[in-house]
Amino acid sequence: MKNKTESNKPWGGRFTEATASSAEAFSASIHFDMRLYRHDIAGSKAHAKMLAKVGLISGSELEQILAGLTEIEAEIESNTFVFRPELEDIHMNIEKVLVEKVGQAGEKLHTARSRNDQVTLDMRLYLREESQHIIGLLSDLQKGFVQLAREYLGLIMPGYTHMQRAQPVLLSHHMLAYFEMFNRDKERLSDCLKRINVLPLGSGALAGTSLPIDRDFVARELGFPKVSANSMDAVSDRDFIVEFLAACGLIQIHLSRLSEELVLWTSQEFSFAAIADRYCTGSSIMPQKKNPDMPELIRGKSGRVVGNLITVLTVLKGLPMTYNRDLQEDKEPVFDTVDTVSQSLTVMSELLSGLSFNRETLKHATETGFMTATDLAEYLVLKNIPFRQAHGIVGKAVAFCIKNSKELTDLTLKELQGFSDVIAEDVFGVLGAEGSVNSRNTSGGTAIAQVTKALERAETDLGIR
Amino acid sequence: MKNKTESNKPWGGRFTEATASSAEAFSASIHFDMRLYRHDIAGSKAHAKMLAKVGLISGSELEQILAGLTEIEAEIESNTFVFRPELEDIHMNIEKVLVEKVGQAGEKLHTARSRNDQVTLDMRLYLREESQHIIGLLSDLQKGFVQLAREYLGLIMPGYTHMQRAQPVLLSHHMLAYFEMFNRDKERLSDCLKRINVLPLGSGALAGTSLPIDRDFVARELGFPKVSANSMDAVSDRDFIVEFLAACGLIQIHLSRLSEELVLWTSQEFSFAAIADRYCTGSSIMPQKKNPDMPELIRGKSGRVVGNLITVLTVLKGLPMTYNRDLQEDKEPVFDTVDTVSQSLTVMSELLSGLSFNRETLKHATETGFMTATDLAEYLVLKNIPFRQAHGIVGKAVAFCIKNSKELTDLTLKELQGFSDVIAEDVFGVLGAEGSVNSRNTSGGTAIAQVTKALERAETDLGIR
Amino acid sequence: MKNKTESNKPWGGRFTEATASSAEAFSASIHFDMRLYRHDIAGSKAHAKMLAKVGLISGSELEQILAGLTEIEAEIESNTFVFRPELEDIHMNIEKVLVEKVGQAGEKLHTARSRNDQVTLDMRLYLREESQHIIGLLSDLQKGFVQLAREYLGLIMPGYTHMQRAQPVLLSHHMLAYFEMFNRDKERLSDCLKRINVLPLGSGALAGTSLPIDRDFVARELGFPKVSANSMDAVSDRDFIVEFLAACGLIQIHLSRLSEELVLWTSQEFSFAAIADRYCTGSSIMPQKKNPDMPELIRGKSGRVVGNLITVLTVLKGLPMTYNRDLQEDKEPVFDTVDTVSQSLTVMSELLSGLSFNRETLKHATETGFMTATDLAEYLVLKNIPFRQAHGIVGKAVAFCIKNSKELTDLTLKELQGFSDVIAEDVFGVLGAEGSVNSRNTSGGTAIAQVTKALERAETDLGIR
Amino acid sequence: MKNKTESNKPWGGRFTEATASSAEAFSASIHFDMRLYRHDIAGSKAHAKMLAKVGLISGSELEQILAGLTEIEAEIESNTFVFRPELEDIHMNIEKVLVEKVGQAGEKLHTARSRNDQVTLDMRLYLREESQHIIGLLSDLQKGFVQLAREYLGLIMPGYTHMQRAQPVLLSHHMLAYFEMFNRDKERLSDCLKRINVLPLGSGALAGTSLPIDRDFVARELGFPKVSANSMDAVSDRDFIVEFLAACGLIQIHLSRLSEELVLWTSQEFSFAAIADRYCTGSSIMPQKKNPDMPELIRGKSGRVVGNLITVLTVLKGLPMTYNRDLQEDKEPVFDTVDTVSQSLTVMSELLSGLSFNRETLKHATETGFMTATDLAEYLVLKNIPFRQAHGIVGKAVAFCIKNSKELTDLTLKELQGFSDVIAEDVFGVLGAEGSVNSRNTSGGTAIAQVTKALERAETDLGIR
Repeated sequence: MKNKTESNKPWGGRFTEATASSAEAFSASIHFDMRLYRHDIAGSKAHAKMLAKVGLISGSELEQILAGLTEIEAEIESNTFVFRPELEDIHMNIEKVLVEKVGQAGEKLHTARSRNDQVTLDMRLYLREESQHIIGLLSDLQKGFVQLAREYLGLIMPGYTHMQRAQPVLLSHHMLAYFEMFNRDKERLSDCLKRINVLPLGSGALAGTSLPIDRDFVARELGFPKVSANSMDAVSDRDFIVEFLAACGLIQIHLSRLSEELVLWTSQEFSFAAIADRYCTGSSIMPQKKNPDMPELIRGKSGRVVGNLITVLTVLKGLPMTYNRDLQEDKEPVFDTVDTVSQSLTVMSELLSGLSFNRETLKHATETGFMTATDLAEYLVLKNIPFRQAHGIVGKAVAFCIKNSKELTDLTLKELQGFSDVIAEDVFGVLGAEGSVNSRNTSGGTAIAQVTKALERAETDLGIR
Repeated sequence: MKNKTESNKPWGGRFTEATASSAEAFSASIHFDMRLYRHDIAGSKAHAKMLAKVGLISGSELEQILAGLTEIEAEIESNTFVFRPELEDIHMNIEKVLVEKVGQAGEKLHTARSRNDQVTLDMRLYLREESQHIIGLLSDLQKGFVQLAREYLGLIMPGYTHMQRAQPVLLSHHMLAYFEMFNRDKERLSDCLKRINVLPLGSGALAGTSLPIDRDFVARELGFPKVSANSMDAVSDRDFIVEFLAACGLIQIHLSRLSEELVLWTSQEFSFAAIADRYCTGSSIMPQKKNPDMPELIRGKSGRVVGNLITVLTVLKGLPMTYNRDLQEDKEPVFDTVDTVSQSLTVMSELLSGLSFNRETLKHATETGFMTATDLAEYLVLKNIPFRQAHGIVGKAVAFCIKNSKELTDLTLKELQGFSDVIAEDVFGVLGAEGSVNSRNTSGGTAIAQVTKALERAETDLGIR
Repeated sequence: MKNKTESNKPWGGRFTEATASSAEAFSASIHFDMRLYRHDIAGSKAHAKMLAKVGLISGSELEQILAGLTEIEAEIESNTFVFRPELEDIHMNIEKVLVEKVGQAGEKLHTARSRNDQVTLDMRLYLREESQHIIGLLSDLQKGFVQLAREYLGLIMPGYTHMQRAQPVLLSHHMLAYFEMFNRDKERLSDCLKRINVLPLGSGALAGTSLPIDRDFVARELGFPKVSANSMDAVSDRDFIVEFLAACGLIQIHLSRLSEELVLWTSQEFSFAAIADRYCTGSSIMPQKKNPDMPELIRGKSGRVVGNLITVLTVLKGLPMTYNRDLQEDKEPVFDTVDTVSQSLTVMSELLSGLSFNRETLKHATETGFMTATDLAEYLVLKNIPFRQAHGIVGKAVAFCIKNSKELTDLTLKELQGFSDVIAEDVFGVLGAEGSVNSRNTSGGTAIAQVTKALERAETDLGIR
Repeated sequence: MKNKTESNKPWGGRFTEATASSAEAFSASIHFDMRLYRHDIAGSKAHAKMLAKVGLISGSELEQILAGLTEIEAEIESNTFVFRPELEDIHMNIEKVLVEKVGQAGEKLHTARSRNDQVTLDMRLYLREESQHIIGLLSDLQKGFVQLAREYLGLIMPGYTHMQRAQPVLLSHHMLAYFEMFNRDKERLSDCLKRINVLPLGSGALAGTSLPIDRDFVARELGFPKVSANSMDAVSDRDFIVEFLAACGLIQIHLSRLSEELVLWTSQEFSFAAIADRYCTGSSIMPQKKNPDMPELIRGKSGRVVGNLITVLTVLKGLPMTYNRDLQEDKEPVFDTVDTVSQSLTVMSELLSGLSFNRETLKHATETGFMTATDLAEYLVLKNIPFRQAHGIVGKAVAFCIKNSKELTDLTLKELQGFSDVIAEDVFGVLGAEGSVNSRNTSGGTAIAQVTKALERAETDLGIR
C-alpha cells in the first residue's frame, strides 16, 4: 500500500495520508462508470451554460468549457482518452482533464454542484435513453410475433394448461398472447420514465446551494419536464433504478417463458417448430446435436436480471439519509441488466424471424387428447343441462374413451347418447378442432374472427398496417 | 392416504381413484384463499347477472344465485360457514354450498367460466382494493411527516452524507424528504392499478368460451375500465402481482431507511429524538432498557417483502403457457406483503405521532463538525475564486482546525485571511448554521423559504391546508 | 390504541405508558413462535436443573418448576392452554403461566437467562430436530428412486442435453442421478447440524452472567457437544439459520428439476410416464384433464424456499451487534421452509410409488434422434481416427440422414463407408441403443454393469439390501 | 448477421448455415471463462496423460500435447495469446490453437471427453483454489481482530442490544465475536470443499464413454479424493457452486455488520474509533469531510453477493436433466463473488490495521445509560429475591434515575434501600462498569479472565501464539 505524507486528491485538503492503493482500487468506479461519459458531458455542458447565464462564469469561460468537453468526448470516442483509476470516477476523470485543457475555467465547472447530484443526473440521462431503446426493442419483438401470427393465421395447435393438452387454439392466438405481455412491459417502462425524467442537479451534496443557480434552465436544456422537489431526497433516491430493474425483471421472465416454449417445441417429442441453424449450436462430442442455445441462454439469463434487482434492493435496505457510498453499487447491476435485456430482446427478435412451425405436426397434435371435451360440455349447456352436470357427463365419456383407446370424435351418436340423451346429430360440429376454435368467438377468444381483429389492432399499434 | 375407488371431486368424472389425502392437503389452498371470499362472491354475482342478461340462466335462477351468494357471504362473515379442505379452494367451497342451497341454479353458475379466469379476477379485485388502501395509508404517513415538519419548522439539525455530518439542514427539510419518497410510492401503485384494473373473466380455461357471453357488461358491473385482450395471456398473466410486490418492496425499503434513522436518533449517542413509551418495549433481563422495537421490526420486515417479490419471480421463471398449477403459489406472498406493508405503515404513522425531537441536542449538534465548510467555499466562489481552488483553501482551514481543536467559527478573521486574503468581515455571516441553511434558497434547497413553500405544497396535496 | 398510565409488562418497570395495542399486535410473535413450545420447555427444564445444581434455586423449587412445565406442555398439547398475545412470545407465555401455577419458584426460572439466549436455544433445538427429520425424508425419497431403478433395470430411454435427445441411457441411471443429488443434500444438512448443535444458553442478553452457572451441565442435559464461545456472538448469530435455509433451497431446487421432468414425461408429447390418478387433479371446466398438480406445486414452491433464504439474508444485512429486534423475523421463513420442504419430500416420495413408466414408448424413443452418433465417433477413434476428425465424419453422416429422413441404423455399410473407409461390418454393434448403453462401462457410466453396481451401493447405503 | 452456407465450427458437421454473428456474440463465453485457462490446461494435461496410459494416444502424442499446452499457458500469461470469440469458450480456444501447434495429436485431446464434463472440472479446480484462498483471507482478517483484542485488552465499552446501551463489555470481547463469525465461515467453506473436490471427468456429455479410460488415474493426477458416481448427475450438478455462493453470502453479510459498526463508530455522534486517512476519502464539494467509504462499499457489496446467489438458484430452477446451456450462466456470478469477497476481506484486513479506538470516549460512554442495571438485579438474586421481582425493583430504580437525571451510581445507599431493603453497602461493587464486566466470569462471558482465555485460544488457532 502506498502511503505518502499527503493526499493528491481533489478533496484531499484535510487529509494527512495519501489513499492506500488497495483502497483506491477497491473504491474506484471508473472501469464501469466510464460508460456514462456522454451523459456526464451533456450534464456538464448544460450546467456550465446555466453558470454563465446566472453570471457565475463568464461567456468566454463557458466557451472554453464547452470546447474542452467536446474535445474530451471526441477523445473518449476515439479511444485516445486515458482513464486514470486514481481519479476514482468518470466525473473526476473528465473534470481533471478539462482543467488540464482549459485551466481556471475548468476549475469553475464544479461550482454549485456535487458529485452526489451529478451522478444521479448521469444515471437518469442514461436510463432515459436506455428505457426508450428497450421500448423500441420490445416493439421489434412484438413485430416478430405479429408477423408469425399473420403468416400462420388459421393454423390450429393444442393449447395447454398444466402442460397437458387442453383446448385447440390458433397458433396466431398463442403468438398474440406474447404481444400482450410485451405490451405491458412497454407500459411499465413508460411509467417508470415519468420518475426517471426528473432533474436532480441543484441539490448539491444534500442541501442545495447558496449560489444563485437556475434549475429550470438546466431542466429545459436537458429535456427534463420536472425538477426534484427536495435536495436530500434527490441525492439519496434510487427508486427509479429499482423500478427500472423490476420492469426489466418481468421482461426477462417473459422471455424465459417464451424460451421454455421454444425449447419444448423444438424437442424431438414436440417437433412443433424448428429454429434456423444459424441460431443453434452443436456439441463438441455428439455430432448429431442441434441445440436451442439461444432460448436456453435467454431463459438462464433471467437469473442475473432477478439477481440484479435483489442486489440493489439489498444495497438500499436500512441506509440512513442521504448519500452513502453504498449507492455506488447501483451501477453495475443496471449496466448488466441493460445489456442482458437488450441483447436478449435483439437475439430473440432475430430468432423469431428464423422460426418455422411444422404445420403437419401441429394439425396432427390437435386430433388427440380430448381437447374438445369442454365444447361438448358447453354443447350440453346450450341443451339446458346445468354446467356442473354437463361436466360430469363429459368426464364419463372421456373415461370411456380412455378405457377403449378412442378419441371423442371416434364415438358414435349412439355411444354419445348413452351419456346423455339430449345429444343429437349436431354434436359432431363441436367435436372437431376447427369448429371448437371458431366457436370461441367472444372478445379475447381464439376464434379466427377475434384473432384477426386482435392481429389488425396489433399491426396498427406497431405502425405496420 | 385414502384411496377410494372413485373420485368425488367436481372434476372427477374421468378419474378412477380418489385423491390421496396427502395430495389433497398439499394442494388445497382454502386455508389462505378464503381471504378472497368477498371478491369471489362479487365476481360470481356479476357473472350470474351477465348469464341472465344473455339468457344462459333465467331471471329466477339469477335471483336464487344472488340470494344464495348473499347468504354465503353473511355466513362467512359471521364465522358460521364451514370451509372444507377437500373442496380445494374458495371457488369450489362457495359453489358447492351454493348448489346445496339453491340446487340446479347453482350448478349453472360456472357456465362459461373456469377457475383459471375466476382466480385471476379475484386477485385483481383484491389487489385493486388493497392498492387503494395502501395509497391511503401512505397519505396518512405523509401527514405524519408534514405535521412534524410544521411543528419543528425552523429547527436546524445536521445533514449527513456517509453518516458524517455534512451540512446543516432544517429538520423539516429532512421530514419532507420522506414525503417525497412515499409520494413516489403512491404514484407507482397508481400506475400499477392501471394494469390490475382489467377484466379477465370470459377467458375461460385458456381459449375463451363458445357460449354467448357479454364481457363488457361484466366489466361495467365490476368497475373495470378494460377487458383483457387475449384469453391465453389473461389466464397466465401474473405481471400485476409482480409489479405490486415490487412497488411494495420499495415502500418497505423506504420504511427500512426511516427505521434505521429512528433507531440511530433514539440511541444514547445521537439522542436526537425519543419515541413514546407506548411504542417501545423493554428487556426481560435488563431493567433499564427502552428499545425501539417498532422501527427494528419494520426494518427487518423488509426481508420478507423482498423475499415475497423473489418468490413470485422464481415461480414464473420458465413456465410455459398457459395456466400451470405453480401459479397457485402467487397468493401467500401477496397476502403476506399486503399485511406487512399495511401494518408497517399503520404502526409507523402512529409512531410518528408519538415522536419528539430534542431541540437542544439538535441545535448543539450543528455547532460542531465544520458543517459550513461548503458555505465558506461558496463564499470564496462569490469572491471570484474558482471552486476547485476554494475547496482546497477550505480543506486546509479545516485541517488547521482539527489540529487545533477548533471549529471554523472559532477562527479569527486574521486566521481566516491566512488561508485566503479575499476573506473579509462578512465571512462570519456564512459560518453559522442558520445563515448556512437560509442561504440555500434555490428550489429544493433547505432554506426556510423553500421548505415553507414545500410544506405548503405538501399540505395542499394532502388536503390538510 | 390503549394508553394506560403504567405498563403491565414483565419488563415494564421503567415505562410510563402501557404499550399501544397496535404496537403489541405488531410485535407479538406468539402466533408463530408457539410452535417452539416443546423446545422452550425442554430448554427451561435443563436450565432449571442447572440452577438447582449450582444452588441458585432449591431442590423443591426445581421440582415445582419441572412439574409446572410438564403440566404446561400437556395443556398445550391438549389445546387447553390459552396463549395471550399481550405476553408477546412463547417464552413469556410459558413463564407467566408457570408463575401463576407455582408462584415464587417460577419467578426464579429466568435467573441467569435472557430471552436473547433463550430464543436462539429454542431455534437450535428446533432445527436440530427438523434437520434430522428432513434427512430421513430425503432417505425415503432416495428409496423411491432406488426402487424404480430396481424395477426398471435394463430399460433404455433417451438421455437429453439441451432437451434434445443426446445418448441412450438406462432409466435406472437417470433415477440414480437423483439419488446422488439428494445424497449431497443430506451431507449438507449434516454439516449444517455441526453448527446448529451448539449451546448458546449462558450468554445472557449479550455479555454472559454474573451468577455462578454451569454451562457444560446444560449442554450435556440437552445433548449439545459444544457451548458457544462468545456471548455477544451467540445472541446475534443466525448463521445456522441461513445455512439451513440455503441447504433447503437446494433441496427444493432439486425437487423442481425432478418436477419439471415429471411434468414433461406425463405430457401427451412425451408420454414416458403416468402418475397415479390419486396424485393428480382435474379441471373445473375441461372434463378430460388429468393434471400433474403435485409436481407443478412442488416446482412452484421453489419460489418460496428461495424467497425465505433471501428474507433472512436481507434481515441480517447491515445489522450492528448484538441482538436487534429485526432478528425476530428469522422464524416464519424457517417454519415455512421446514413445512414446504418436508411436505414436498413426503408428497414426492408417495408420488414416486405411484409412478409408472411406459416401456414401449421409451424403447421407441431411443430408436430415433441419432443418439448413437457419439458411439460411431468413438468407434472411429478406436480405428485410430483422431477424435476431432471422427466428429466431423459423423456430423456429415447425420446431415446425410436428415436430408434423406433416415436414422444411422438405416444406413448400409456401403453408405457408411462413404463417410470413412475404416468402417467395417462391426459398426452395427455400436449403432443400436443397447450396444451403446452397455459400452459406457466406466465408473459412473450408464452400462448395466456400472448401474447395477451403483444401485447395489445405494441399496446398501439406505439399508435396504 | 453473417450467414455463410456452411458452418466452420468444430461441431458444425450437420449444420447448413454458419452461426449468426449476433448468436455467436450472445453465446460466447470466452470474455469471462478465459479466467479458467490455468485450470483448463491442468485438466487437459491430466486427461492426456491418462489417454496415453490407457493407450488411446501414443507417448509421443502425449509429449506434443503437453508441450503445446505449456506453450499456450505461457502465451496466455504473457498476453500474446489471441482469444477468438467465434471459438466460443476457453476450451475450444485452447484446443484449436493446440491443433494448430501440434496437428493430429491435438485432434486427439478431446477423445473420451465432452465440454460438459470439462467445464465442470474447470470450475471445480477453480473453486478449490479460490475457496482455499478465501479461507486464508479469513484467517488474515481474524488476525486483525485478535491483534486489536490484544492491543486494547482491558478497555471497556458499551455493549448494545437494539442499538441501546445494554451492558458494559470488553472491547476485546466484541472483537472476538467477529473472530467467531469468520471462524464459522471458514468451517462452511471447508465443508463445501468436500463437495467441490470430486472429479467429474469421464462423464462425457452425459452418459460416460465407451472408451477404456482410467478415471482414478486422473483423480490422482489432479488431487481429487473422489470421482463422481453418476455421469448424468455429474454434468448437471451445480450444487457446489450454489453452496460456495451461499457460504460467501454469509461472509459478506458478516462484513456488512462489521462495516455498519465501523460507520457508526466513526460518526461524530459515537466517535469511538478512527479509520486511518489512507482508507477514507473526501468530498468533491464539502472540504471538511472524511468519509468511511471502505466499510460503506463493503456493506453495499453484500447486495451483489446475495444477488449472485439468487442468480444461480434462479438459473437452476426447473431445469430438466442433464446439461442445458442455461448452466453457462453459473460463471460470471461466481467470478464476481470471488472477486468481491476476496477484495472486501483484503481491504477490511488492511483497514483494521489502521483502526484506532478512542479510549477516553469509550470509557466515558460506559458511565451513562444504566448499563449495570442487570448487575443490580443479579445482586438482588444473590440476596434471594426471585429474578422477576428483582427485575421489577431495578426497573423502578431506573425510572427514578431518569426522572431525576441521575445514573445508578449517583444514588445514595439510602435511596437504593428505598427500592429494596436487602441492598447493602456492598452494592457499589456491582454498579461500576469494571466490576460488572469482571463478574461475568462464566465461559463465553466478558470478564477479562474469560476473554484472555478466548484470546489465547484464538491466537493458538491462528498460529500466532
